[in-house]
Amino acid sequence: MISTDQITQKINNKTKPLGSLGTLEDLAVKICRIQNTLSPSVNNAKILVFAGDHGLCNSPISCYPQEVTQQMVYNFINGGAAINVFCNLNNIDLKIIDAGVKNLDYEKINTHPNFISKNVEQGTKCNLSQDAISEEQLNKCFDYGKEIIHEQLKQEVDIIGFGEMGIGNTSASALITSRILGIRLEDCVGKGTGLNDKELLQKIEVLQQVNKFHKNANEPLEILKAFGGFEMAMMVSAMLETYNKHKIILVDGFISTASFLVAYKINPKILENTIFSHCSDEKVHRRVLETLKVTPILDLKLRLGEGTGAALAYPLIKASCEFLNKMSSFEDASVSNRQ
Amino acid sequence: MISTDQITQKINNKTKPLGSLGTLEDLAVKICRIQNTLSPSVNNAKILVFAGDHGLCNSPISCYPQEVTQQMVYNFINGGAAINVFCNLNNIDLKIIDAGVKNLDYEKINTHPNFISKNVEQGTKCNLSQDAISEEQLNKCFDYGKEIIHEQLKQEVDIIGFGEMGIGNTSASALITSRILGIRLEDCVGKGTGLNDKELLQKIEVLQQVNKFHKNANEPLEILKAFGGFEMAMMVSAMLETYNKHKIILVDGFISTASFLVAYKINPKILENTIFSHCSDEKVHRRVLETLKVTPILDLKLRLGEGTGAALAYPLIKASCEFLNKMSSFEDASVSNRQ
Repeated sequence: MISTDQITQKINNKTKPLGSLGTLEDLAVKICRIQNTLSPSVNNAKILVFAGDHGLCNSPISCYPQEVTQQMVYNFINGGAAINVFCNLNNIDLKIIDAGVKNLDYEKINTHPNFISKNVEQGTKCNLSQDAISEEQLNKCFDYGKEIIHEQLKQEVDIIGFGEMGIGNTSASALITSRILGIRLEDCVGKGTGLNDKELLQKIEVLQQVNKFHKNANEPLEILKAFGGFEMAMMVSAMLETYNKHKIILVDGFISTASFLVAYKINPKILENTIFSHCSDEKVHRRVLETLKVTPILDLKLRLGEGTGAALAYPLIKASCEFLNKMSSFEDASVSNRQ
Repeated sequence: MISTDQITQKINNKTKPLGSLGTLEDLAVKICRIQNTLSPSVNNAKILVFAGDHGLCNSPISCYPQEVTQQMVYNFINGGAAINVFCNLNNIDLKIIDAGVKNLDYEKINTHPNFISKNVEQGTKCNLSQDAISEEQLNKCFDYGKEIIHEQLKQEVDIIGFGEMGIGNTSASALITSRILGIRLEDCVGKGTGLNDKELLQKIEVLQQVNKFHKNANEPLEILKAFGGFEMAMMVSAMLETYNKHKIILVDGFISTASFLVAYKINPKILENTIFSHCSDEKVHRRVLETLKVTPILDLKLRLGEGTGAALAYPLIKASCEFLNKMSSFEDASVSNRQ
């Protein structure tokens, strides 16, 4: 097993002042440890975008109508969304997973090579008075999540970014985050896709009702059933399996982080394989990252989801491997070291 | 002339929540305004690394010997430095400029296509009791800086990143920053390439002597002569000319920012064309950026110089143009807009 000392020694022999590549050095150490090598590679990257609809969407929790989930899936398939543009730019293989989107016209999309059909059900249940996800549905999400990773790993893959699409899923994420970390619900509820102050208060009110009804959900899977979306549950399973397969997990923004929290409660060791791409503008995200004691790579006030933060952070992760693999050492370059 | 309203309208029609690409949207607006277009391009990028030696280096201001400037120039030419690795990774054309390095073996490097020979003198004077740069040398730096830009712009170039190498140049930058912004000198002096606390106190002491001797230097060019390096003076001129040619200026870290401050004092309009790539770990840099009311793209605790922050920020600048050029609008993609 490669030790941190060995990695640090290799980094410190590169022709640069000690520690001067900051966060990139921390990333290099982390990736070397995950891959158990002094010559890490993240050349093969994928982003999985899990999409699903939320039963709570009949309540006033979003300023976009529920159909947008479905419409954005078509947009992903047609290559017109932000995540398409950033994946193309940065040479990332993109897959869109229908985990539970309502009313998709499968004839339009089923044959598309980027589309993965794993529809558990046409949206979760409204969780004001029942679980969003049933036991049986949760099991399906977990089976499908694993299957997806197994399928994707038939190609060479070093790092998997986790993104999502689902109108209503900042609400699910606020509830999950609040319950897992014990942060007051109102501190976890943000403006999502762009609520105004009055709409935000309405959202908080609805979510407090949901929160109260499910006050006894405390175990990670109970929490996921009470509040989650199919896209989030499938992502939890896919993250856990990515860890089991010794690959790097790249978390996107607030919703991916909320899903990660569930995975982390199930298996805390997953943190060792996880890189956080950015700090979202959704208000509680910074606090969640601080609680996890992790440093995100970017801080660009993004709040788009889809995996966009992961796609944008990827070139920096690549740079962290490249400097370790390709820079000269003081000796190679005949450069004098510190006096 | 394209208005900010027109640009904002194009951004807001993209299939994403309003404002959800945060800093990338601000960058897109800025680049559209510089290029006076709604279809911006930064596909052709260059980084210029200006190198020079500092006469003050006989005093205890750095933990690396002065020869490292020269050795690193060879390392740049041979492709082994961090800036080489990051420019290769991100498809940036790199040029190394000898603005005043000591003892370079020109036979080794003069024919290299990445090398530009503009040696004003073998290092600046020790400025404990005289100017670092004479009037005549300053004029040469300004002529050469312009020439370099004219030469480089014979190819297609959209954006120029400004990096540097010069043992001792955090000292020059501290003195310049302190004098231009009226910040106490000791608050501008940082650990550079990695001084310990005792060495930092020695550095402050030396710089206070230099500062005192040149207490009457107040105009930007006087300040540059008193404290500057040839690499910094040539960079000032090259930045000003990049602005005159309506191109984008990409500032790297603390030393590039100190050079930018001189250019900004000469022509404040230069700020309109300038993007700040990152906030350096050199302690006063954040305060300087705040004073300029600018937001750097990255915050990765880098303190390497060479233009590395500029090279690392470049993919995000590219992403800011790509989303504007390539994402679908709500109408194109038949996605419902805000309710």
